[in-house]
Amino acid sequence: MSDDLVTFGETMLRLSPPNDERLETAREFEVRAAGAESNTAIAAERLGAVTTWMSKLPNTALGHRVDGGLRQYGINTDVVWTDDDDVRQGTYYLESAGRPRGSNVVYDREDAAVTTATPEELDVDRIRNAQAFYTTGITPALSPQLRETAATLLDAAQQAGTMTAFDVNYRSKLWSPEEARKTVTQFFQVVDVLIIALKDAKAILNYEGDATQLAHHLASEFDFKTVVVTRGDQGALAWNDNVIHEQPAFETDTVDAVGTGDAFAGAFLAQRLSGADIQKALKYAAATAALKRTIPGDVATVTKPEVDAVVNEGNADISR
Amino acid sequence: MSDDLVTFGETMLRLSPPNDERLETAREFEVRAAGAESNTAIAAERLGAVTTWMSKLPNTALGHRVDGGLRQYGINTDVVWTDDDDVRQGTYYLESAGRPRGSNVVYDREDAAVTTATPEELDVDRIRNAQAFYTTGITPALSPQLRETAATLLDAAQQAGTMTAFDVNYRSKLWSPEEARKTVTQFFQVVDVLIIALKDAKAILNYEGDATQLAHHLASEFDFKTVVVTRGDQGALAWNDNVIHEQPAFETDTVDAVGTGDAFAGAFLAQRLSGADIQKALKYAAATAALKRTIPGDVATVTKPEVDAVVNEGNADISR
Amino acid sequence: MSDDLVTFGETMLRLSPPNDERLETAREFEVRAAGAESNTAIAAERLGAVTTWMSKLPNTALGHRVDGGLRQYGINTDVVWTDDDDVRQGTYYLESAGRPRGSNVVYDREDAAVTTATPEELDVDRIRNAQAFYTTGITPALSPQLRETAATLLDAAQQAGTMTAFDVNYRSKLWSPEEARKTVTQFFQVVDVLIIALKDAKAILNYEGDATQLAHHLASEFDFKTVVVTRGDQGALAWNDNVIHEQPAFETDTVDAVGTGDAFAGAFLAQRLSGADIQKALKYAAATAALKRTIPGDVATVTKPEVDAVVNEGNADISR
Amino acid sequence: MSDDLVTFGETMLRLSPPNDERLETAREFEVRAAGAESNTAIAAERLGAVTTWMSKLPNTALGHRVDGGLRQYGINTDVVWTDDDDVRQGTYYLESAGRPRGSNVVYDREDAAVTTATPEELDVDRIRNAQAFYTTGITPALSPQLRETAATLLDAAQQAGTMTAFDVNYRSKLWSPEEARKTVTQFFQVVDVLIIALKDAKAILNYEGDATQLAHHLASEFDFKTVVVTRGDQGALAWNDNVIHEQPAFETDTVDAVGTGDAFAGAFLAQRLSGADIQKALKYAAATAALKRTIPGDVATVTKPEVDAVVNEGNADISR
Amino acid sequence: MSDDLVTFGETMLRLSPPNDERLETAREFEVRAAGAESNTAIAAERLGAVTTWMSKLPNTALGHRVDGGLRQYGINTDVVWTDDDDVRQGTYYLESAGRPRGSNVVYDREDAAVTTATPEELDVDRIRNAQAFYTTGITPALSPQLRETAATLLDAAQQAGTMTAFDVNYRSKLWSPEEARKTVTQFFQVVDVLIIALKDAKAILNYEGDATQLAHHLASEFDFKTVVVTRGDQGALAWNDNVIHEQPAFETDTVDAVGTGDAFAGAFLAQRLSGADIQKALKYAAATAALKRTIPGDVATVTKPEVDAVVNEGNADISR
Amino acid sequence: MSDDLVTFGETMLRLSPPNDERLETAREFEVRAAGAESNTAIAAERLGAVTTWMSKLPNTALGHRVDGGLRQYGINTDVVWTDDDDVRQGTYYLESAGRPRGSNVVYDREDAAVTTATPEELDVDRIRNAQAFYTTGITPALSPQLRETAATLLDAAQQAGTMTAFDVNYRSKLWSPEEARKTVTQFFQVVDVLIIALKDAKAILNYEGDATQLAHHLASEFDFKTVVVTRGDQGALAWNDNVIHEQPAFETDTVDAVGTGDAFAGAFLAQRLSGADIQKALKYAAATAALKRTIPGDVATVTKPEVDAVVNEGNADISR
Ligand SMILES: [Ca+2]
Ligand SMILES: [Ca+2]
Ligand SMILES: [Ca+2]
Ligand SMILES: [Ca+2]
Ligand SMILES: [Ca+2]
Ligand SMILES: [Ca+2]
Ligand SMILES: [Ca+2]
Ligand SMILES: [Ca+2]
Ligand SMILES: [Ca+2]
Ligand SMILES: [Ca+2]
Ligand SMILES: [Ca+2]
Ligand SMILES: [Ca+2]
Ligand code: NI
Ligand code: NI
Ligand code: NI
Ligand code: NI
Ligand code: NI
Ligand code: NI
Ligand code: NI
Ligand code: NI
Ligand code: NI
Ligand code: NI
Ligand code: NI
Ligand code: NI
Ligand code: NI
Ligand code: NI
Ligand code: NI
Ligand code: NI
Ligand code: NI
Ligand code: NI
Repeated sequence: MSDDLVTFGETMLRLSPPNDERLETAREFEVRAAGAESNTAIAAERLGAVTTWMSKLPNTALGHRVDGGLRQYGINTDVVWTDDDDVRQGTYYLESAGRPRGSNVVYDREDAAVTTATPEELDVDRIRNAQAFYTTGITPALSPQLRETAATLLDAAQQAGTMTAFDVNYRSKLWSPEEARKTVTQFFQVVDVLIIALKDAKAILNYEGDATQLAHHLASEFDFKTVVVTRGDQGALAWNDNVIHEQPAFETDTVDAVGTGDAFAGAFLAQRLSGADIQKALKYAAATAALKRTIPGDVATVTKPEVDAVVNEGNADISR
Repeated sequence: MSDDLVTFGETMLRLSPPNDERLETAREFEVRAAGAESNTAIAAERLGAVTTWMSKLPNTALGHRVDGGLRQYGINTDVVWTDDDDVRQGTYYLESAGRPRGSNVVYDREDAAVTTATPEELDVDRIRNAQAFYTTGITPALSPQLRETAATLLDAAQQAGTMTAFDVNYRSKLWSPEEARKTVTQFFQVVDVLIIALKDAKAILNYEGDATQLAHHLASEFDFKTVVVTRGDQGALAWNDNVIHEQPAFETDTVDAVGTGDAFAGAFLAQRLSGADIQKALKYAAATAALKRTIPGDVATVTKPEVDAVVNEGNADISR
Repeated sequence: MSDDLVTFGETMLRLSPPNDERLETAREFEVRAAGAESNTAIAAERLGAVTTWMSKLPNTALGHRVDGGLRQYGINTDVVWTDDDDVRQGTYYLESAGRPRGSNVVYDREDAAVTTATPEELDVDRIRNAQAFYTTGITPALSPQLRETAATLLDAAQQAGTMTAFDVNYRSKLWSPEEARKTVTQFFQVVDVLIIALKDAKAILNYEGDATQLAHHLASEFDFKTVVVTRGDQGALAWNDNVIHEQPAFETDTVDAVGTGDAFAGAFLAQRLSGADIQKALKYAAATAALKRTIPGDVATVTKPEVDAVVNEGNADISR
Repeated sequence: MSDDLVTFGETMLRLSPPNDERLETAREFEVRAAGAESNTAIAAERLGAVTTWMSKLPNTALGHRVDGGLRQYGINTDVVWTDDDDVRQGTYYLESAGRPRGSNVVYDREDAAVTTATPEELDVDRIRNAQAFYTTGITPALSPQLRETAATLLDAAQQAGTMTAFDVNYRSKLWSPEEARKTVTQFFQVVDVLIIALKDAKAILNYEGDATQLAHHLASEFDFKTVVVTRGDQGALAWNDNVIHEQPAFETDTVDAVGTGDAFAGAFLAQRLSGADIQKALKYAAATAALKRTIPGDVATVTKPEVDAVVNEGNADISR
Repeated sequence: MSDDLVTFGETMLRLSPPNDERLETAREFEVRAAGAESNTAIAAERLGAVTTWMSKLPNTALGHRVDGGLRQYGINTDVVWTDDDDVRQGTYYLESAGRPRGSNVVYDREDAAVTTATPEELDVDRIRNAQAFYTTGITPALSPQLRETAATLLDAAQQAGTMTAFDVNYRSKLWSPEEARKTVTQFFQVVDVLIIALKDAKAILNYEGDATQLAHHLASEFDFKTVVVTRGDQGALAWNDNVIHEQPAFETDTVDAVGTGDAFAGAFLAQRLSGADIQKALKYAAATAALKRTIPGDVATVTKPEVDAVVNEGNADISR
Repeated sequence: MSDDLVTFGETMLRLSPPNDERLETAREFEVRAAGAESNTAIAAERLGAVTTWMSKLPNTALGHRVDGGLRQYGINTDVVWTDDDDVRQGTYYLESAGRPRGSNVVYDREDAAVTTATPEELDVDRIRNAQAFYTTGITPALSPQLRETAATLLDAAQQAGTMTAFDVNYRSKLWSPEEARKTVTQFFQVVDVLIIALKDAKAILNYEGDATQLAHHLASEFDFKTVVVTRGDQGALAWNDNVIHEQPAFETDTVDAVGTGDAFAGAFLAQRLSGADIQKALKYAAATAALKRTIPGDVATVTKPEVDAVVNEGNADISR
């Protein structure tokens, strides 16, 4: 069976001390698999899309920890396993806290196996046979090789008629605004559906206007089919066929904010792939993102009936 | 020493993943003993009533886990132990979360040992010798046998001069509104003190009015001594001798809402049994319910001085 | 891609208190997915076989907990999901301890969803297209429907040229020796590879001889291709083409003995499917079984290089 | 209902780091209620005796932690609660380890509430109405007041025809051999059943002979009804009616050795109270002691069928 | 290298059940080292001051647990170790909860080793060589000896030109308002920098005015160099050179409020010692106090860049 | 105060799943600071030596986790902190298990900050002022820079009259036998006290004889003051002044074998520095190594009295 959605990118081990403990004094870490493109894949799968995450991992217990961790959530994985000693499993350390401490991330992802992934070793035909292909701006930020690989995959997808979707996902710890702008605007040429946070547009495109203007501006300049602009708890909007659709955020009691945008993207794509119109897809995306924030970890382990309930009733609290 | 209060009903193992984790991805469960009638018994005991919970359990490590778990909180237990292989220990799986996810319950309580409990094997004299007897609408919902047994016990209690108290406690996962209405209104004939949530009145009695009207209506129709109507964070009121007493809810930082109503009922009964007037009993009930919500698990493991402090000062924060 | 091996049977939630704690006093349970046929599937997959576990689960968070838990270990799952309220997720409670306490199991698996599984709703073609099909004597012990379903699947497999493998796996808590004997000897008619513990032969076949005699006796009476007789820490032997192959057990520091036989079976089948001769398959089976005993849970989450190391060097202790 | 057995003594909070961690580096402690006389009470109750533990505790959350912890195991508690600020809840810190580290105990039990318990505030009639009364040499070691109180209780018991039992239980951290000898030999005058470890006889009675000689010697000198001498893994023996009965220890995989002697004493007394002869009582005592060593904590949370199984079959490993 | 700051006082083991569990039902305690003067020392060290905490501890695993726990946070410790059996390691049990339960503390700190500390055994020269010396009103409340010792140390410090700082820190569980007033006002004679909570002024000085009036009043009556008055979430102010400086509190999501005042004091002193003016020192103190409340435990394990970020941007949420 | 011992080398974060869980399925990791040279420093400090560990760490929460973790055990740390983004905190993942699985280590230590440490940024005078300086063969294996730095430090130490000690500590995952031989034999020129495992001599020196021959051979070839040869559970021996001293290993119940050799080295050096003769130093080394194996983590958090007890009585089990 061919995929509705294939995503490509890095997934890390996420190591975080429980119960607001600090990294500096931690005696235990919770271990999870986490990465923008696998987060998105899982959200899409949860909403009904047949989804595969594609990547490269070291053939160690840590690499298999990531692979098994993702399979557990229901998606398929298509992994290039490497025994090359010069690459490693990327990790990131996350310390969560409330105001005014906020969250703190220590990335330890240099030389990850995925940074050496070439189009030749990846199953590009799987992408060509899928309904949609997705990656984010994190991928090209990880290595020059990945910049080339991601561009090649997007191009191959678009040429094969696979819908290409791209979330800008700017990470200031990975590259400068200038580098990011140069690369992602090149990628825009082969992207059908763009997702961009308003704050990222400000950071890397030096954009000054509001979300509506941004969507129109990008759509006209790069000829996207759809542009989605997210604004955190201010909600999101989408430009499609020259029409703007708005969607407020749902109220949420946040326990873990990481992965909110990925949950949004995955749900939006799954809805679109199953035929939903833009407005409905945005609402499911917002509901899935809100549910994500109640779940520890990067991943939206929601169920379709729960998202339906939030969309229809505002919450998924089930009566006894 | 005879009991101030005897309660009768099912107590389950409550299995819940810690820290907002989902059931679907849980690697550990917290284990607790939980059930409406034992929750109520414990709250009453904590407020000073000598209390026994009466039930039937399988003679397995799980049944003894429930029994020991309840004894730990200070109450007495009077258990019919069965080695019958066709009955089991009821369990329920609880997943707690904030908005918009809310809580989710998976009941796994069919064929629980208690569903086969007959008046013949229970110590009905203990009920006859007690000051009060209490059960809830959950009990008759569990099996036809329990419907008969609960009716018999209430009847025996009332005939012996034991005050009968009943909390409607409608559970839509156990029976339909019609079944519930038919049964509980029959039970009303042998009940002295009725406790009913306004939302349950709406659900099963098709009641449309407000709490005051409901109390008057029920009192006149069924000749109760006392009718308590609860409205969640809107507070409660009680009809007694044709007078309505109101009590707002205390503000609370909820960590576990399950068992709030049971804590309310237990404290109300304990206060009444120790001679408090309706208004004071309502206030202690509201204070105990508020404290319950700060405690993980179904059970109000409060102390009398803490409840006194909340009643008198609004909180039990103890100075250093 | 078609499967090397398909297994069919029940997988339960396994709930066990950590650190030798007793069930009666437990405050937390470790949660795992566990079942003979999925245990075997995972061991086979770990040794290189493409494997699918086939079953029926309730469409609840608990059913998905089982499914995701198994996928995490690398196998595929082919699940019939049911929303039928009358069936449930089977569970078992395990308390582990050393001498003289030993382990204690409380089964709570009645009315599991799988007990209603019919051949019509299962994907019998997947079995027909596989190299081998496997189930155990637990499956027909669970319900009359499963007795029929398991017989039908074995028959369909054998007719399609799929190698059929069967582990007697007698469970005295599920059925009597007489019932077991009657059923499993009927099944023997459609089984190619039989695995049987010597103690089970004693218990249900009233067998008095030694393992060698048993293998010969069974092979001649039921026309098996292969008969494997296991004797715990006394090792195992196999009858094949009228030759007996012996294999001692590897020494092991046991932390969890549950699933040892399933690990043995899975490794034996994977080796046979990849062309190994009987002696080599037995050795890999014994090594995998020994490794299993060092791993908490029912499942042999080994790697092929580890098993190779145990086979070749007696241990998998990796140098720094 | 009157008691089969009443025990009197101190129960502490036991605080111990999990998993062989050291006290000096511990980040968490497991919390349990532990004390020789409550340990013994629980073992007796588990073997079928109706048992009450009598003591004095501070009226704090810690005192109630102890009380509830004991009730959970099935015994009754008869506690004098004190609000006196000058007394406290005794605690002990336990660090467990294998060879050559061994276990380490830090006592923090000075000024425990029980050290001020007087006969006047205790329910001596409960002792008079019981079949047997039990305390250990730890009790008089805790304070001069307790020396007097324990003597008074033993005397009152014996005068009322309650069988008195006493375990010497020498603790070198609490008093010197000389003090201990002087006090316990006075106590011997009012003791019917003496339990003494051979090593304690060596330490405080300067005894040089073997266990048989010790039992004869003590029986003739102090006119005991029964003398039990324990020798750790060398087994135990009992002198009764001038006959010596021997009992080897059962093999055990020890996870927690604390409380072994208390389990032995409780089972021995329960058996004697239910009419068992000395030999049978010794065997049940040895079996219960062996089971205790497989259970974390001070307490033998065994079941009667398990002890039966060890007595009859050498282990309680239950078949599946 | 000489110290910027030396603090003197008691540090206890802090034992607290995780996850809002109650002391009465706790099965595990988190273990931390906690005490006003070590809390303050750590906050000062984190802000850049070279700091030593001075005290007396029992030479047991518990005493070393405290010492190592403090060294872990970066400060130096200068400990008098005692093998005296009559003194012990002080502990306190903390139960945290939201409204209306609040927190509850059970002190178990009588006979702590520090209560016998004399000036002769302490390294007074270290204090004389430091820039500043700090203790709180808890220290003299613990024993008559400590009253004398603390007075002697403050006096020696002031005579040597070491700046003396004192936080009134009234603890109603340790002494009466009258005792406290008498002692601390004597101490005021040798104090340069006074820190006092407005509520403590009300409790022990019978003070009725507002914070500004209090600061002026105390400054004129006792000739302090600086008076800091804290008002919880109402912020703080400082009198210095006859000028009042105000500082509001930062908004915070509190997970553990204990130690807030100590964090404030430590940061204030560190800033002053590094040359900051009063207003800047107050702002850093408020920021450190706010960060503290997001951290479990008594201790402000902050970093200087985090506090800078809160001071400059209102939060320390670090971008990815 | 000058140091008795300075050690130099890498300390990593050690991440290991609890309770024999596998890395591939871990949900939590225990976090510890671990490294040969800090392990040795701590053992020496515990035996009474004033000790400093010297290294270079990233100025992140992870680097400070290591530093604080080591300070907690009582040693001093002298750390070069770097904000260089191109270096990182080294980690290693440890999976422990019994036979036949054994332990498994995944190193993730490339580009650790320490690999860039130069003599210029380190406090060489501290080494010159110490009694002894210690490093191991792991250090030069980590980078060419460290090869140079370690050589420079050893040379500077020896020239200043500081005793130089070196443990060969061959790690096959870090370099080849040839590289190791070439480097460590150069180091031997500036080493006074050599510690070498017999198996390492076999691996990198192609040595074929027994331990005694090895010691003589090395002593004569490289002019060492002392040569210690370790043989695991076969004990150790030392050559000194042309005399061989033998020491068997103590029996131990191992819970964590990592760091055994480091504990041995630290205790041996501490004893020698405090004037013990070779035989006594060996015995203390063996006792400390045996105690280490009962303690989770890399570090011998023993006390001097415990080691005394093992040396004198064979165990440190403390009587109650
Ligand atoms: Ca991510
Ligand atoms: Ca829900
Ligand atoms: Ca309930
Ligand atoms: Ca409170
Ligand atoms: Ca199984
Ligand atoms: Ca291994
Ligand atoms: Ca004890
Ligand atoms: Ca058992
Ligand atoms: Ca404090
Ligand atoms: Ca931060
Ligand atoms: Ca190491
Ligand atoms: Ca010890
Ligand atoms: Ni894998
Ligand atoms: Ni993300
Ligand atoms: Ni029980
Ligand atoms: Ni809860
Ligand atoms: Ni309830
Ligand atoms: Ni836990
Ligand atoms: Ni699922
Ligand atoms: Ni199995
Ligand atoms: Ni934990
Ligand atoms: Ni209590
Ligand atoms: Ni233990
Ligand atoms: Ni004991
Ligand atoms: Ni220490
Ligand atoms: Ni705190
Ligand atoms: Ni845990
Ligand atoms: Ni630091
Ligand atoms: Ni370990
Ligand atoms: Ni080492």
